[in-house]
Amino acid sequence: MFEKPLGMRDTLPALYEVKKNVRNTMSKKIENWGYQFIETPTLEYYETIGEASAILDRQLFKLLDQQGHTLVLRPDMTAPIARIAASKLYKGGYPLRLAYAANVFRAQQREGGRPAEFEQIGIEYIGDNTTSADAEVISLMIASLKEAGLTNFTVPVGHIGYVKALFIEILGNEERADILRRFLYEKNYVGYREHVKSLPLSSIDKDRLLSLLKLRGNETKIAYARELVEGENGKKAVEELELLWQKLQAFGVTEHMKIDFNLVSHMSYYTGILFEVYADKVGFLVGNGGRYDQLFDKFERPAPATGFGIRVDRLIEALDLPEQEANIHCIIFSVEQRGEAIRYAMKKREKGDRVILQDIAGVQDVDACVNAFQEITFFIGNTRKGAGAE
Amino acid sequence: MFEKPLGMRDTLPALYEVKKNVRNTMSKKIENWGYQFIETPTLEYYETIGEASAILDRQLFKLLDQQGHTLVLRPDMTAPIARIAASKLYKGGYPLRLAYAANVFRAQQREGGRPAEFEQIGIEYIGDNTTSADAEVISLMIASLKEAGLTNFTVPVGHIGYVKALFIEILGNEERADILRRFLYEKNYVGYREHVKSLPLSSIDKDRLLSLLKLRGNETKIAYARELVEGENGKKAVEELELLWQKLQAFGVTEHMKIDFNLVSHMSYYTGILFEVYADKVGFLVGNGGRYDQLFDKFERPAPATGFGIRVDRLIEALDLPEQEANIHCIIFSVEQRGEAIRYAMKKREKGDRVILQDIAGVQDVDACVNAFQEITFFIGNTRKGAGAE
Repeated sequence: MFEKPLGMRDTLPALYEVKKNVRNTMSKKIENWGYQFIETPTLEYYETIGEASAILDRQLFKLLDQQGHTLVLRPDMTAPIARIAASKLYKGGYPLRLAYAANVFRAQQREGGRPAEFEQIGIEYIGDNTTSADAEVISLMIASLKEAGLTNFTVPVGHIGYVKALFIEILGNEERADILRRFLYEKNYVGYREHVKSLPLSSIDKDRLLSLLKLRGNETKIAYARELVEGENGKKAVEELELLWQKLQAFGVTEHMKIDFNLVSHMSYYTGILFEVYADKVGFLVGNGGRYDQLFDKFERPAPATGFGIRVDRLIEALDLPEQEANIHCIIFSVEQRGEAIRYAMKKREKGDRVILQDIAGVQDVDACVNAFQEITFFIGNTRKGAGAE
Repeated sequence: MFEKPLGMRDTLPALYEVKKNVRNTMSKKIENWGYQFIETPTLEYYETIGEASAILDRQLFKLLDQQGHTLVLRPDMTAPIARIAASKLYKGGYPLRLAYAANVFRAQQREGGRPAEFEQIGIEYIGDNTTSADAEVISLMIASLKEAGLTNFTVPVGHIGYVKALFIEILGNEERADILRRFLYEKNYVGYREHVKSLPLSSIDKDRLLSLLKLRGNETKIAYARELVEGENGKKAVEELELLWQKLQAFGVTEHMKIDFNLVSHMSYYTGILFEVYADKVGFLVGNGGRYDQLFDKFERPAPATGFGIRVDRLIEALDLPEQEANIHCIIFSVEQRGEAIRYAMKKREKGDRVILQDIAGVQDVDACVNAFQEITFFIGNTRKGAGAE
């Protein structure tokens, strides 16, 4: 009885408080770095946003409006922000820094699985193709996560252009490259190895493909990566990542990071530097981001762009905060002392206390009420008593 | 190109700031009075929430989930909160005080009309049938509106039981009463008068129906209302409103209020005391509320309840605030002074300033960038200059 649709959740008071605090703390840091928050509609045209989004079609919630157009519940915030930036805000003269804290929607197939609606906090940095932009996005992500209280986390950073160049050099065509890329995307390194062994390639080329898997670790991997790739595109990707690393060092955030030339955060969305963030204790993905220089083409205003998105539900799980009951003071009064009770409550509220003012005639079980609150004051008949009485 | 669905709006940075401030200010006041915020899913089952909601069916956004159930985008927050309260929170021993700040959805038929998605802030006070509960809800609504900065507003308060009793006494059946009630609901007093004149009633009864329209004003109307009605139900409604008025006086909020025995905020939802709030300057409805003692029957846990909901978009329009550009300081650096620029930015950010750190290599038009910010500092080559330099 009275169930919710698949994957839909209620947020009760204790969790609401935690979410609000995390959202406010991260938002403040993001604003502090000069980003401006915007809000977009929950519903968008499928043609405009659904198709431009990085989310699989079967994960979209779709509906028809009364004019017969297909609408979607926004599956991410990057495409809606690109729509606004392209049509209203970005003029191309200088970069734009936008931010959001919003719920996004992903239709789920199974009971007891992932949430179908969850909050993301993130930024989009539009119109800047330098690695300085990528460095800023990563550094701000790390700064805001630390501000929220996350201490143990790892941010692997890679370059989609490297994987792409290496695969094309060795495999010759995109279809073959796609198969291998999918193994990396799924982080199925066993499957990757098996598949490489089965390919009709020279042992040198097989070794090169297998060596790719070793390109995860500290910055010494950059030099190995440069050796492994032959063509200009691959070398350029290495160079970009190296330059980025220097800039990240200038921001002082590399202690939380590692190099990962295997990183494939999405099958087709990202176009350059990309990264993820894992909470060490729980081991799951808290957020990710990267450069998406082609999305704005779809909105007829080509622009380079980069950004990150953090999943608030997973961040909160990783923070592992104690659930705190709100500290609410309850004043129970009877009609004779209504005026005194109101004045007493107002005085306490002015001091910032959270105070309930309860007519005893509205309480069915006074004992249950008393047990529900830590502090109670009675203004009953001609007496007044209670822990909170002054 | 790149349009949004009918009635959908973007919230750009300046308005976002205003909304956030209004939301935070009102939320703080609501928490201060002991209410706890909760969040409910955007999507609910039509059977559970769509039918229980006070919103017309043709205003619902509906979709089918992958299991073939009809879902709705929540059209209000009262029914979802009743679902949660009935199933998880309310045990019946003592009242429950819940609050929300959430977007709700109403499908629109015409371009350029009302928003199809808008934010509501409100409270639900569940399990208390005393007029003390109604008085608290109204007083908190007024307190939170004042806190948000609203100064000129009027809160008419009435009792649906009065209109109901008077109409049944005179007209004898519900269908006839419904026709007259609709005129009041639409605040079409001319239509009401015409219709009354056309009815096959004695001139005494017609006069009584016409006299109802005079029962709007200060508290002296209460005595007139008591005279006009004959039966017990009508008298009881007057008594309740009188008692409520005394309690509102104890809260010190009646200067913003008036008595309105014509008030019919909704055709069937409210069951007792009800109220609206109008912004005087703009003349439109900013919010409303009242007692809905029958909704919980639909969730198999009968309980009296009362609450209010404020429309944030209309409140902001009524506040008529100046749009403020964010005060963001822009630091433009070249590669030679990256380190100095970062340190300078970090220091300013620590002081709470909003600071952009911009690599000049990412700027296409430096003049446009300089013109976009009030404060600029350059860290270029070996020089440093700018309004913000220390």
